Amino acid sequence: MAKQHPSIPKGTRDFSPEIMIRRNYIFDTIRSVFGKYGFLPLETPSMENLSTLMGKYGEEGDKLLFKILNSGDFMGGITDDDIHNSTSGALAARLCEKGLRYDLTVPFARYVVQHQSEITFPFKRYQIQPVWRADRPQKGRYREFYQCDVDVIGSTSMINELELIQIVETVFDHLGIRTLLKINNRKILYGIAETIGYADKMIDITVAIDKLDKIGLDAVNAELQERGISAEAVEMLQPILSLEGTNREKLERIAQIISGSETGLKGVEEMSRVLDYVESVGVKLPIELDLSLARGLNYYTGAIFEVKALDFQIGSICGGGRYDDLTGIFGLPGMSGVGISFGADRIYDVMSGLDLFPMNAQTSTQLLFVNFGGLEELESLKVIRMMRERGFMCEIYPEAVKMKKQMDYANRRSIPYVAIIGESERVEGKIVVKRMADGEQKSYTVSELVDEFKLY
Amino acid sequence: MAKQHPSIPKGTRDFSPEIMIRRNYIFDTIRSVFGKYGFLPLETPSMENLSTLMGKYGEEGDKLLFKILNSGDFMGGITDDDIHNSTSGALAARLCEKGLRYDLTVPFARYVVQHQSEITFPFKRYQIQPVWRADRPQKGRYREFYQCDVDVIGSTSMINELELIQIVETVFDHLGIRTLLKINNRKILYGIAETIGYADKMIDITVAIDKLDKIGLDAVNAELQERGISAEAVEMLQPILSLEGTNREKLERIAQIISGSETGLKGVEEMSRVLDYVESVGVKLPIELDLSLARGLNYYTGAIFEVKALDFQIGSICGGGRYDDLTGIFGLPGMSGVGISFGADRIYDVMSGLDLFPMNAQTSTQLLFVNFGGLEELESLKVIRMMRERGFMCEIYPEAVKMKKQMDYANRRSIPYVAIIGESERVEGKIVVKRMADGEQKSYTVSELVDEFKLY
Repeated sequence: MAKQHPSIPKGTRDFSPEIMIRRNYIFDTIRSVFGKYGFLPLETPSMENLSTLMGKYGEEGDKLLFKILNSGDFMGGITDDDIHNSTSGALAARLCEKGLRYDLTVPFARYVVQHQSEITFPFKRYQIQPVWRADRPQKGRYREFYQCDVDVIGSTSMINELELIQIVETVFDHLGIRTLLKINNRKILYGIAETIGYADKMIDITVAIDKLDKIGLDAVNAELQERGISAEAVEMLQPILSLEGTNREKLERIAQIISGSETGLKGVEEMSRVLDYVESVGVKLPIELDLSLARGLNYYTGAIFEVKALDFQIGSICGGGRYDDLTGIFGLPGMSGVGISFGADRIYDVMSGLDLFPMNAQTSTQLLFVNFGGLEELESLKVIRMMRERGFMCEIYPEAVKMKKQMDYANRRSIPYVAIIGESERVEGKIVVKRMADGEQKSYTVSELVDEFKLY
Repeated sequence: MAKQHPSIPKGTRDFSPEIMIRRNYIFDTIRSVFGKYGFLPLETPSMENLSTLMGKYGEEGDKLLFKILNSGDFMGGITDDDIHNSTSGALAARLCEKGLRYDLTVPFARYVVQHQSEITFPFKRYQIQPVWRADRPQKGRYREFYQCDVDVIGSTSMINELELIQIVETVFDHLGIRTLLKINNRKILYGIAETIGYADKMIDITVAIDKLDKIGLDAVNAELQERGISAEAVEMLQPILSLEGTNREKLERIAQIISGSETGLKGVEEMSRVLDYVESVGVKLPIELDLSLARGLNYYTGAIFEVKALDFQIGSICGGGRYDDLTGIFGLPGMSGVGISFGADRIYDVMSGLDLFPMNAQTSTQLLFVNFGGLEELESLKVIRMMRERGFMCEIYPEAVKMKKQMDYANRRSIPYVAIIGESERVEGKIVVKRMADGEQKSYTVSELVDEFKLY
C-alpha cells in the first residue's frame, strides 16, 4: 500500500498526554464536585436517530448535524427522480437514519422520556461527553468538543438554583479561577416587556439593553425605537436602564416598576428566593443581577446564569438556566428542570493562561528507575513493584542504554525523580534518588525507600 | 410538533447512573493502575479520514465502518452514471470523507506517525474511548462500545511484556476477579510450522491444535491431514500436541523440537526471558504457556496474551500481543510495540455475575437531608455545606413534601443515611441520623456531625 501522510479531519483534535493530564484534572475536579452534590453520571449513545435530533436546533442546527450514511445498500429505493428533485436535506434524510449528537440536552430529554418509569425524580444527573457540529472550524470552535452538563429535572424548588450556584462556586474555587456569576430571570425580562406594552418584543428589548455598556444610553434608546418600540415605552424603560446598587436594591426597584406584571413579579420572587438562599448559606462567589444577560431566551423560562473569569479575557466559561418544558417535545410535558454547562475548552484556556495547573496535573510518572541491565535491572524491577504497591507511579527505562539517553527521557517526560541502582548500590542494598529539578541526591536502603520515600 | 416515542439506534445503549457508577469504578481502577506503570492518557478524534481507516480491517471491516455524510452539497460532482455504475462502497467513498473509528489501534498508529517528532520514545500510552462498528447487533455485541488499550511503542525489551503482565495482575487483583493469563508467541508457532516443513500453514496448524481439548488427538491429526499436512509432518507434530508439565518444562521441550528454526528459537528466548522476569519479581498471577492461543496471528509478531476469568464462564476479558510493524502502513517502519486491551463490557458482566462491585460502586449520595421547609431547611442547607467541605456526598430533598415521599426517594436511590433536622432538632441544635439499612438512629450536635461523622 502506498505510504500515507496521516492527518485528522479539520476541526477535530488529538489530545496529547500532556494535554490529557490537564483536561482530566479539570474533568475529575468537576466530576467530584458534582458527586458531592448528589448528581449522578449518565451516558447516552454518540448516535441518535435523526428523528430525535432534527428540528430541535432550528433550521441552521439541522444543517450542522453530522449524519451517518446507512449501512449496506443505502441507495436502495432512491430513484433518479428523488435525487434530482430533492433538497440536500431531504435526500440526506433518505440516505441517513442516524446522526451524531449535537448537544447533551436533547439526548437527556430523550432519555428522561424513554426511561421515565425507571427514573427516581427529582432526577439529578451529570453528563460529560463529546458532541459534534459541522460548523466552520475557527479559533476556539471545533467540530468535536466535550460538553459537561449538570441538570436536575422534576423539581421547581429554588434550592436547585442554589445548589448549582454552590457547584459553580466550589468547582472554580478548587480550580483556582476567580469568577463572577451573572444571574437573570426570563420572567423578569418578560415582565419588563409586558409593562412597557411590548410583551412580544422581549428579545429585541433585551438585546438592546445588552449593548448599554458598549454603545451608551442614547444609542440604546435610539436602537429601541428603530426596533419598533414607541418613544413613550422607551421612556418607561429608563429606570430599568439606569439600575444601580446592590442586587437587593436593583430587585426592589424592578419589583416596583413591573408591579403590574404577574409573570414579572413571579420572576422577582424566584430571584429573591435564590438570593435569600445564597445569603443564608454564606456563598462567597460574587453574584451580580444583570438584566442584559440574554443567553438561551428561546428555551429558558426562569433563572439564567453565566460565569465569567475575572482575571482572563474570554467569553463565559459556564452558563445555564431553568427550562419548564424540556421533555414536552418527546411527549412528557410539565417537567421543569434547571441546569448548567461547564465549558471545558475555555476553562482549559483560562487555566493555561493564568498558569493555574498544579504540579500533579503536569506530570504522571514520579520516579524513573535507570536501567543498568543484569542483576541491577532485576533489583530495580523488584523495588518498583513494592513502590507501586505503596501507590507511587514508577517506571523503568526498558532498555539498558546509555545513562544520558535515560536521563534525557526523564527530562523530556518531566519525571521529577530518578532512582539509581548501579552495581555498587545493589551490592550495598542502596538506592540513590536524584531530584531532577536541582540535582540533589539522597541515598536510601530498600526498606527506607519503600517505607519512607516522599516527594520533596 | 407531533408527539414522538423516543428510542435509540439498535446496537447502542444508554448507561443509566447505576450502570455508570459501576462502569466508572472499572475504568477508574484500570486508569489508576496504568498511571502507576507510567502509561499516559491519549485521546484521538471520534472521526478519522476514511483514507486512514479503509483497508486496515480487511474487506469485511471496510463494510463495518460507519461513514459520515459530507456536509453541504454532498451530491455535487456525482453524476447519474456514477450512481448507476458504482458499487455501494465506491459511491460511499464519494459521499463521505470521514468515518467513525473502528478501533483504537489504527488511530494510535496514525497519531504516532503524525506526531513522531514531538513524541518521547518509548511511548507508553493508554486510551479509553468508544469505537463504532456497523455489525449486526446481538447479545454482548454492540455498535458502540468502549475499548481500553494500553501500549508501549518504540521498545523491543521484554520488560514491556513483564509490565503488561503486572498490569493485568494488578487490575484484576484490585477488581477482585481471579484470572488465568495464557501466553503464546507467534515466533514459536512459526518455528513449529517451519520445523515440520509447512511454514506457510502456520495458521492451519495452530487452528487445529486449538481444537485438541474439544475433539481429541485423533480428530486433530485427521484434520491436519485434511488441511494438507503430510502424515510424516503430522507425526513430527505429536510431541508438540502432547506437551505437559510446567511452563519451563514445556518450553525446554519445544526448544529441542524446533531447534532447527532460527525464528522459533528467538520465540523461545523471548518467552523464556518473560518467564525469568515474572519469576524474579514474584508475579502471583497464574500464567500458562498455551500453544493453541491463536488470537491476532495476522498482526502479532511475538508474545500473544489472553486473560480468562476463573470463576465465570465468558470469553477472554483481556488480550493483546507484540506487533513489529504497527506504523509501517503510515510510512514509519521498524517501530515495535506491545499492548493489551481490557474488555470493559465483559469485565462488567463478570463483576455483576460474581457480585464483586464494592459498596462504594453501588451508590453515590451518602446522606440525604430531609426537607421540612422554613428555618429547618435553611439549617440543613448550612450543615450540608459544611459536610460537603469535609468531603461527604450530600443532598437535600428540594421540596418540603411529606416525609414518606422523601424516605422513598432515599430508598430508591439507595442512599444509606438520612439526616433529620426537624423543628425540635433545630431548636436544640441537633441532627438525627438514621441508617437506612437497619433504621438505627443517632443524635449529633452540628459540630459532632461535621467533625466526627463516619459511615458506619
